Amino acid sequence: MCGIVGFIGKEEAAPILLDGLSRLEYRGYDSAGLAIYDGKLGLQVVKAKGRLKVLSDLTQDGATVHGTVGLGHTRWATHGEPSDVNSHPQVSENGRFAVVHNGIIENYVEIKEFLQHKGVTFVSQTDTEVVAQLLEYYYDGDILNAVSKVLHRINGAYAFGIVCADCPDKLVAVRKDSPLILGHGDGFQLLASDVTAVIKYTREVSYLDDGEVAVLTQEGAQVYDAYLQPVEKERHHVDWEISAAEKGGYEHFMAKEIMEQPEAFRKTVFPRIKEGRVVLDDLCFDAGYLKNLDKLYIIACGSSYHVGMAAKYNLEKLLRKPVEVALASEFRYCDPIVTEKTLALVISQSGETIDTLAAMREAKRLGARVLSVVNVVGSTIARESDDVIYTWAGPEIAVATTKAYSTQLAVTYLIGLYFADLMGTIEKKEYDAIISELLLIPTKLESILERRQAIQYYASIYFNHPSIFFIGRNIDYAIGMEGSLKLKEISYIHSEAYAAGELKHGTISLIEPGTLVVALASYQPLFEKLMSNVVEVKSRGADVLGLATDAKGAEMAKTVDHTITVPDTHPMLLPSLDVVPLQLFAYYVALQRGCDIDKPRNLAKSVTVE
Amino acid sequence: MCGIVGFIGKEEAAPILLDGLSRLEYRGYDSAGLAIYDGKLGLQVVKAKGRLKVLSDLTQDGATVHGTVGLGHTRWATHGEPSDVNSHPQVSENGRFAVVHNGIIENYVEIKEFLQHKGVTFVSQTDTEVVAQLLEYYYDGDILNAVSKVLHRINGAYAFGIVCADCPDKLVAVRKDSPLILGHGDGFQLLASDVTAVIKYTREVSYLDDGEVAVLTQEGAQVYDAYLQPVEKERHHVDWEISAAEKGGYEHFMAKEIMEQPEAFRKTVFPRIKEGRVVLDDLCFDAGYLKNLDKLYIIACGSSYHVGMAAKYNLEKLLRKPVEVALASEFRYCDPIVTEKTLALVISQSGETIDTLAAMREAKRLGARVLSVVNVVGSTIARESDDVIYTWAGPEIAVATTKAYSTQLAVTYLIGLYFADLMGTIEKKEYDAIISELLLIPTKLESILERRQAIQYYASIYFNHPSIFFIGRNIDYAIGMEGSLKLKEISYIHSEAYAAGELKHGTISLIEPGTLVVALASYQPLFEKLMSNVVEVKSRGADVLGLATDAKGAEMAKTVDHTITVPDTHPMLLPSLDVVPLQLFAYYVALQRGCDIDKPRNLAKSVTVE
Repeated sequence: MCGIVGFIGKEEAAPILLDGLSRLEYRGYDSAGLAIYDGKLGLQVVKAKGRLKVLSDLTQDGATVHGTVGLGHTRWATHGEPSDVNSHPQVSENGRFAVVHNGIIENYVEIKEFLQHKGVTFVSQTDTEVVAQLLEYYYDGDILNAVSKVLHRINGAYAFGIVCADCPDKLVAVRKDSPLILGHGDGFQLLASDVTAVIKYTREVSYLDDGEVAVLTQEGAQVYDAYLQPVEKERHHVDWEISAAEKGGYEHFMAKEIMEQPEAFRKTVFPRIKEGRVVLDDLCFDAGYLKNLDKLYIIACGSSYHVGMAAKYNLEKLLRKPVEVALASEFRYCDPIVTEKTLALVISQSGETIDTLAAMREAKRLGARVLSVVNVVGSTIARESDDVIYTWAGPEIAVATTKAYSTQLAVTYLIGLYFADLMGTIEKKEYDAIISELLLIPTKLESILERRQAIQYYASIYFNHPSIFFIGRNIDYAIGMEGSLKLKEISYIHSEAYAAGELKHGTISLIEPGTLVVALASYQPLFEKLMSNVVEVKSRGADVLGLATDAKGAEMAKTVDHTITVPDTHPMLLPSLDVVPLQLFAYYVALQRGCDIDKPRNLAKSVTVE
Repeated sequence: MCGIVGFIGKEEAAPILLDGLSRLEYRGYDSAGLAIYDGKLGLQVVKAKGRLKVLSDLTQDGATVHGTVGLGHTRWATHGEPSDVNSHPQVSENGRFAVVHNGIIENYVEIKEFLQHKGVTFVSQTDTEVVAQLLEYYYDGDILNAVSKVLHRINGAYAFGIVCADCPDKLVAVRKDSPLILGHGDGFQLLASDVTAVIKYTREVSYLDDGEVAVLTQEGAQVYDAYLQPVEKERHHVDWEISAAEKGGYEHFMAKEIMEQPEAFRKTVFPRIKEGRVVLDDLCFDAGYLKNLDKLYIIACGSSYHVGMAAKYNLEKLLRKPVEVALASEFRYCDPIVTEKTLALVISQSGETIDTLAAMREAKRLGARVLSVVNVVGSTIARESDDVIYTWAGPEIAVATTKAYSTQLAVTYLIGLYFADLMGTIEKKEYDAIISELLLIPTKLESILERRQAIQYYASIYFNHPSIFFIGRNIDYAIGMEGSLKLKEISYIHSEAYAAGELKHGTISLIEPGTLVVALASYQPLFEKLMSNVVEVKSRGADVLGLATDAKGAEMAKTVDHTITVPDTHPMLLPSLDVVPLQLFAYYVALQRGCDIDKPRNLAKSVTVE
């Protein structure tokens, strides 16, 4: 959940490292640090608790730390509270090795005790310091040898950048289960947790695989496997625009990304619809395989899990095959029932979510075929899947996901239609109706976004409510889950989503005069049933903010306090429209409350620890 | 969600009706009323907003209302806010008919408009008044005729008691989808929503089926089907002790019921274990049927749904068959994938939960075989299931379920062992190990209950926290769901349960210094993983109340603020032990907060509306 970056070249490293860290700050931001080697001063380490800005100010944007090789780190605390001493880089006792680390060393307590027994003194509570000290312990003049011994000794998930004062013409990069990419330039090399940190300098990248070790010099990079045998790595060209990772006039990345959703939807969906049919060129599923499926297992975390919840309603209807949606963190340890006839649909924006990755591997081990829906090209999940469909959302920087969620949803529609067509479980008329509605979604999204002022007004009324409940039935319930999570993440209001029929089995006791209930009633077949639940909470004094389609808005408005409407569409596609007012509501509520919207406390974008 | 009662005999009706209502108050308590016919005064109606006590005081415990035939009602508002005018009984414009009703008339708006058009004036907002007025509209001197016409005109779920000033020697009872039983005495007859209201007077009861109409006189009851053809009803003898429905020295029914759990577990489990084997005499499943199952679909609401969540972990392990747990309110409308090879496991304390009943009927319609787990003998779900296993918990009066939950859990263990044995999916050693642990549960429960003072102490520390989070993995997650619901229901604290690995995907942003996290770590295979999550919330300042088994208590105590331990047992049986400290915690927190524990606001025991 941390971000790491490294540079070796001819220019001053510090400004480049700080710039790289600024792109990675979404991964963690409770402290940051640099380790830079200078011929005169040796290995210099500067660290500071707090946002990256504290470190930038401390070093005058890098101007006070000289040297052309170094490492940077932005941290999300797992072991040891956020503090200067627990910040990275971590350094060995005699100052020879500096290490930056993303991940967790599971057996660090045991190694720490071993080293303490040998007389090593530790200064931090981190698991990372153990690695720096162990490198020192094993070092016999050959850095690669020491790294190899350390890797055999530690368990866990990690990406490391390592610099050694004895050989400052080298940077070492290591990865297992945490993301790490290399950037290759003319006379310089970079390492980073994510391509956004390197694209300003180079668009030539390669992806380290699990267990690989890379040695970077000014001239190039040599990668080795776990047995230190040289490996040839394929290079990739990244064609994201750098501007895609900048705010472009919006106050927050989240606002920009909300507004980009019509375009992201278009980019993800339109090229895959040709002559009225879904065409997924990279996939080769056949009807026989699909008809023989015993189950679709959707595996995901957080918002991607909510995409899965919506997809379950749709896919079961379209395919008449059982769909189970599992939290990745639960799936991997529950001894799940998976067979060779199971298709695992794995959803992750970053493609590096550690629980999702581990769950995917477990599903594969048990015999499932894996189809993944991923935003980051070349990410681990994408590479290890049997099949992958990319969401073409572009880089998402705000911690709270919006356009990645929307494009993931869009891909589940495409998968549903593509499979249903192959399996013959959908009639042509219905298929055509969904396709033509699908093509209208971006325009409808634009019309919702244009009317965002009304939502800002509702946010200004309700932003100080301590508890907020979202209720919905069927697909509205899945949307409520996402709307509630959005609000929670960035506004710190305790909100919770309920299947509306479940309220009476407990939670309704929390409803008192003035409690805000957000009632989602866009799914028309259950409009009346949902309205019965609205009446129940109204009669206990709740304030109700309703969401309905245009067709039912006026009817809903008779009963609720305020009504948001979205255009009518095919019921399957409702989540794409409904979620946008809820994202906006969360955004404006957080804005009113003065929260740090793009970087909510305690959260990180890409969750690469368990 | 309301309670109704009726009496016809030679004694004064009012005290008997008030006593009956006092047993039914768990079904709803926002207003209450009586309609009693007296030869001189005609039909007298007394109603009052508030608890039953208001009505009792108003009528001097019934002494001021004379007559030997009448109806009583205790209400849980669905249509129209709680008020005197919206209380039942509802009376027709000229005062000829009085009606008490439990359920919902779905098309009441349309009928109301029809009658208003005919010149009828309405005084309340209730759907029930429509029935009283419509009876009057159709009445031609034959009450049964009028009732029949009304039943053809209305849609919805209902149980009615009807009295008519023109024929005060009769009471009419009608039911469809809402519970109604008849009590038969010597020279008197009763009708009621539940046997608890009649057992003080008679133990001879019969159960009305859907669509049936009963005419009660002093001498007896004649039941008719929907075409007014006489029907012979079987009579049943109820052998519950009346004391089982009284508090027995405890301050609250909930406390009594928590303390009764060892005994309830014993009663439910021990008679079903003979010579070390689970014997379920009433069931006749064979191995071939079970091996051929495509799925077990567990259908339930509220706490019973949480039983299902725990059962899923266990049953999938034991049987290697897919288990899906569905909220009944969602299942019934989601076009679920159910085949003739699907076994629906339906769980309901009352056996009358309307969503669960409707979902069960839908599952049957789609071809599933239904096995239900029910506490109330003769309830609708029990009667309509293909197979039923009763939880022998005795009557549960507190709205927040405790012993019913525990005995439902116990029955899921029995089902798991019984099926696994038949299917040959369990080794003898494992089977024997679980059985012997099962027999030790009541004693272990007693030891937990004996140590309840410690939990009262923790409650006194944390009772004023505004938000509380429960985290757990695997079966601890299922238990956390129930622990959180308990707390929510009776203390009105917004608590929420999370799969511990999901915290990082949003909710952790709500953790701030002093937030209480209840961390469940009883499932030993994931103890370390859970403790990593505990460290994450601790490092953000949370107070952590931990729950572990004795084996891990000391280790957990090193990291958390307070630790509750339960005895070690087989992992499958952990929920039975773990839930008790959480029930006690909820109880003591609510006690500290001065809440109305047995009758939390807005809630009713038996949820017979959608």
